[in-house]
Amino acid sequence: MPDYLLEHINNPVDLRKLDEVKLPQLAQELRDFIINIVATKEGHLGASLGVVELTIALHYVFNTPEDLLVWDVGHQAYGHKILTERRTIFHTNRQLGGISGFPKRSESIYDTFGVGHSSTSISAALGMAIASNLKGDFEKQHIAVIGDASIASGMAFEGLNHAGVTDANLLVILNDNAIGIDPSVGALKKYLTSVKEGKNPKQNNMIRSLNFDYSGPIDGNDLFAVIKELKRLQKIKGPKFLHLITTKGKGLQQAEENQVKYHAPGKFDATTGEIIPKSEENLPPKYQDVFGLTILDLAKKNEKIVGITPAMPSGSSLKFMMDAFPKRAFDVGIAEQHAVTLSAGMATQGMIVYCNIYSTFLQRAYDQIIHDVALQNLPVIFCLDRAGLVGEDGATHHGVFDLAYLRCIPNMIIYAPLNEIDLQNILYTAQLGLNHPIVIRYPRGRGVTNDWQRLHLGKYEKIEIGKAKLLNSGSKTAVLSTGAIGNNVTLALARTKSPENFAHYDFPFVKPLDEKELHTIFNQFENIITVEDGVIKGGFGSAILEFAATHSYNTTKINILGIPDVFIEQGSIDELQQYCKISVDSLEIIFSSY
Amino acid sequence: MPDYLLEHINNPVDLRKLDEVKLPQLAQELRDFIINIVATKEGHLGASLGVVELTIALHYVFNTPEDLLVWDVGHQAYGHKILTERRTIFHTNRQLGGISGFPKRSESIYDTFGVGHSSTSISAALGMAIASNLKGDFEKQHIAVIGDASIASGMAFEGLNHAGVTDANLLVILNDNAIGIDPSVGALKKYLTSVKEGKNPKQNNMIRSLNFDYSGPIDGNDLFAVIKELKRLQKIKGPKFLHLITTKGKGLQQAEENQVKYHAPGKFDATTGEIIPKSEENLPPKYQDVFGLTILDLAKKNEKIVGITPAMPSGSSLKFMMDAFPKRAFDVGIAEQHAVTLSAGMATQGMIVYCNIYSTFLQRAYDQIIHDVALQNLPVIFCLDRAGLVGEDGATHHGVFDLAYLRCIPNMIIYAPLNEIDLQNILYTAQLGLNHPIVIRYPRGRGVTNDWQRLHLGKYEKIEIGKAKLLNSGSKTAVLSTGAIGNNVTLALARTKSPENFAHYDFPFVKPLDEKELHTIFNQFENIITVEDGVIKGGFGSAILEFAATHSYNTTKINILGIPDVFIEQGSIDELQQYCKISVDSLEIIFSSY
Repeated sequence: MPDYLLEHINNPVDLRKLDEVKLPQLAQELRDFIINIVATKEGHLGASLGVVELTIALHYVFNTPEDLLVWDVGHQAYGHKILTERRTIFHTNRQLGGISGFPKRSESIYDTFGVGHSSTSISAALGMAIASNLKGDFEKQHIAVIGDASIASGMAFEGLNHAGVTDANLLVILNDNAIGIDPSVGALKKYLTSVKEGKNPKQNNMIRSLNFDYSGPIDGNDLFAVIKELKRLQKIKGPKFLHLITTKGKGLQQAEENQVKYHAPGKFDATTGEIIPKSEENLPPKYQDVFGLTILDLAKKNEKIVGITPAMPSGSSLKFMMDAFPKRAFDVGIAEQHAVTLSAGMATQGMIVYCNIYSTFLQRAYDQIIHDVALQNLPVIFCLDRAGLVGEDGATHHGVFDLAYLRCIPNMIIYAPLNEIDLQNILYTAQLGLNHPIVIRYPRGRGVTNDWQRLHLGKYEKIEIGKAKLLNSGSKTAVLSTGAIGNNVTLALARTKSPENFAHYDFPFVKPLDEKELHTIFNQFENIITVEDGVIKGGFGSAILEFAATHSYNTTKINILGIPDVFIEQGSIDELQQYCKISVDSLEIIFSSY
Repeated sequence: MPDYLLEHINNPVDLRKLDEVKLPQLAQELRDFIINIVATKEGHLGASLGVVELTIALHYVFNTPEDLLVWDVGHQAYGHKILTERRTIFHTNRQLGGISGFPKRSESIYDTFGVGHSSTSISAALGMAIASNLKGDFEKQHIAVIGDASIASGMAFEGLNHAGVTDANLLVILNDNAIGIDPSVGALKKYLTSVKEGKNPKQNNMIRSLNFDYSGPIDGNDLFAVIKELKRLQKIKGPKFLHLITTKGKGLQQAEENQVKYHAPGKFDATTGEIIPKSEENLPPKYQDVFGLTILDLAKKNEKIVGITPAMPSGSSLKFMMDAFPKRAFDVGIAEQHAVTLSAGMATQGMIVYCNIYSTFLQRAYDQIIHDVALQNLPVIFCLDRAGLVGEDGATHHGVFDLAYLRCIPNMIIYAPLNEIDLQNILYTAQLGLNHPIVIRYPRGRGVTNDWQRLHLGKYEKIEIGKAKLLNSGSKTAVLSTGAIGNNVTLALARTKSPENFAHYDFPFVKPLDEKELHTIFNQFENIITVEDGVIKGGFGSAILEFAATHSYNTTKINILGIPDVFIEQGSIDELQQYCKISVDSLEIIFSSY
């Protein structure tokens, strides 16, 4: 048994001292290290296993961090983190105060560009490459590693389209494993498959059409082949494109065979690969499944219903409908802009479109919401999963801006359900016809209703648009909450010494506001506290302030609780709610001060 | 001389009764009609002249409005409007209460999808086509007409990538005239040029790689050739792509020769084509030129300065710097997402990046602002031209949402200059180093400083970040304005009976707010009026309300003036300000009621 190499590699300088023949052993060690830690600490597995060889090869051949390496999305960057001075703290991955699950500039000089959302790497690396040219450095290399799901997104195309007419030292490495989180889709994927199968002559391929020096496809899990090719490309100036074929989950049999599940498998046995089942008995359902099961049920009864997801069939649970009605449910790939305007086009023809996008990713289609949907007042139904704080994915993924950026758009209805029953009821109500677009935002994770599916699924009640609800009466202070964070309010109030002092109102409609109820509230209470799982600046609380100003309610004191004006890092949702003072504990303290 | 045909054509049904041999005459009449009206009423000229033949051919061959026709952007749709029941009101184009300068669903059943921003047509038409399939209609055709500048935008690629794997009856027509508003750029444009020049074998082109049935390139100004090809394509099922070569400005010699100027030439002589010069003597400069001349001057003194525009070198006046420093100023095409992340990439390498984007188009790069710039706190300098109401371009183009959607982003500085001098001074200040991203928003049109260039250009003063300014003291009511709309306030106050009752504060910084000054104001005044050229919901006024709530200033009455919660149509800026109650006249009335 040879020495254990990995413990001697603190950074790429150490790596580059190794003999090339020792690198396969290092690859095995790095793979084992990732598997062992992720098995107990959880995180993203498959993507990093697939690029172990590429990661070693890149840091071995190029002079990082002088040469600048950008990982797209960053799910695949665990090996990179371990080889760049973070091996000993890698077990803190994704935890509060630990290292981020994604490359992050403030964490390491080797993380040249923060990522999390997809398809930014080409633009970022091209910017660096042009900057190097302007500074007179024509030797430095700038490398973007991007997956086949990410390169199909419009933004990546914009980057390629620009790069192709520059003389920048940009190397785009396509990590083609035919899968993102779910399997890749679209015409480009089909084309790449044909290239892999040798059906397209190399001399006239699409990437060459964009003026790139194309090489490949080669086996990206063949370490020596990759090193050889990188060494060749290192000497070539200008924009270059290397097409690598890799296997997601490489080296762990189950992860190779079940790539969707092992993207982020939770805890598993590091030796056998078996996922350690969580006890899910009697737990409330995930909100995503409430969406998925409800839309499936509604679609059975109404053939005008269509579902759309940009690359999140599993994560959104639209998968249920895709399996049952493959012609009416669409995964359009990482293409949020297209997803929204496609929905608008369908809506013009009378289809009832549920467009499901994570809150943080809807930021990618902001203009399309305004210009293609709201301006034409098309009744598209947007389902924003992962709204609010999302936990361990951290700053890049919190869905905390949506209320602020959507509230200013005319014609929009904005609804945040308090629980699973309200979510299914608003999904039901929306397809009855609202004559307006609606955004339904709900959080990551589980709801609060045990046995929801058996007791409630399909037992629909129509929701009155714009109506707030008094959950608990009280005398002095009105607490106005929107969405599922209201459950924290309920729990906190139950613990408060004088709950009779507090009325609790659920305002699921952030727009339109229930003005009638607000007049009653402002006439009755001395104090108002608003609570939201979103940014304070411009959100639900601001809407209440605007109402008060418009109607000259000057005497009521209003306290706005929500996400403060800083980017929130990773941690458990409870830890982050604590930090933002919207956890049950913090709310109890605040209520007790009234 | 044959009969005048056009007056008998009220809609495509009439058109389709004509003998094909008469169509060239109709094309000539339609072209003359457009020229004659635009010559006096102004508007977009070149694009519509280039597609006269295509417009006639489409409505002649296809069964519009049953077959669904989507024009991308819509600059080119004047002929379409004239042939579809709007000939007699075409002279009201772009006026208040008149027809829109762009296709608009509420205006006509022939306008199947509202446009204005580019690159939406493929997604929209594909949505329609999929809807038709789901409804069991496999005959209907769905047509997207898109220019070569627009098809290079990422969103169009996303649409193609999806369409190529469907069996939708989608016909994408590429109207390739090698120019958008400014000449097209990028690798795709280079590729299309090589196709036109016969340098790429048809059987293996890029569009075919995306699984489209490709035909062309053919002469799009050859009416019979276009009709023949459309008739052939009409019978083919599935996704099809027709590549047409046209000449922008076709039929008016000056417009063909000077395509940038004749995109929207203002008034001109319909016979000679000569542009009628406006008297510009002693007028204040356009804000865009203040930007363009200032950045040029700064770039001469600081070689780290870089300028970026997505396809608006003329409109932003970045052209001045592009001409002087072609290696340091970049037109990246219609690619706002890429423009922002490219800027971020450059900023990581120490470049000082001025990224100039129209306010309405920054909506296209919202996620990139949050995720790639603000989260990493990169000091990119965003210059948002055309912020606020823009006038005749109407609802699709008003830059009224920016304060609301940017204010909620941590780390951002947001500045709106009162006038040209403040604009040049903030541009100067920004390159001294702010350690934060900054957004500088300024309006369309001219400023207020006569002879600015001679008297002020280059005479820089550093602006203190976060500082408000008392413009006029007064006793009872404080008027807080942000940006150039403050000049309306000044004029209105001068007309008020008791100007001594009003203090006027300029709050150029919407973020960070001048909290010190605000404490003084709230302690001193009974009434506050806020004025902004942006939406009321979530904007500057809301920021003031949030400040008041945070600091428990309950007794002050706050009146927020700005854009109400509806989409604002086209009209002159003064007419629209009147509607929104922020014109000088309306402000005078409001102030007089205090």
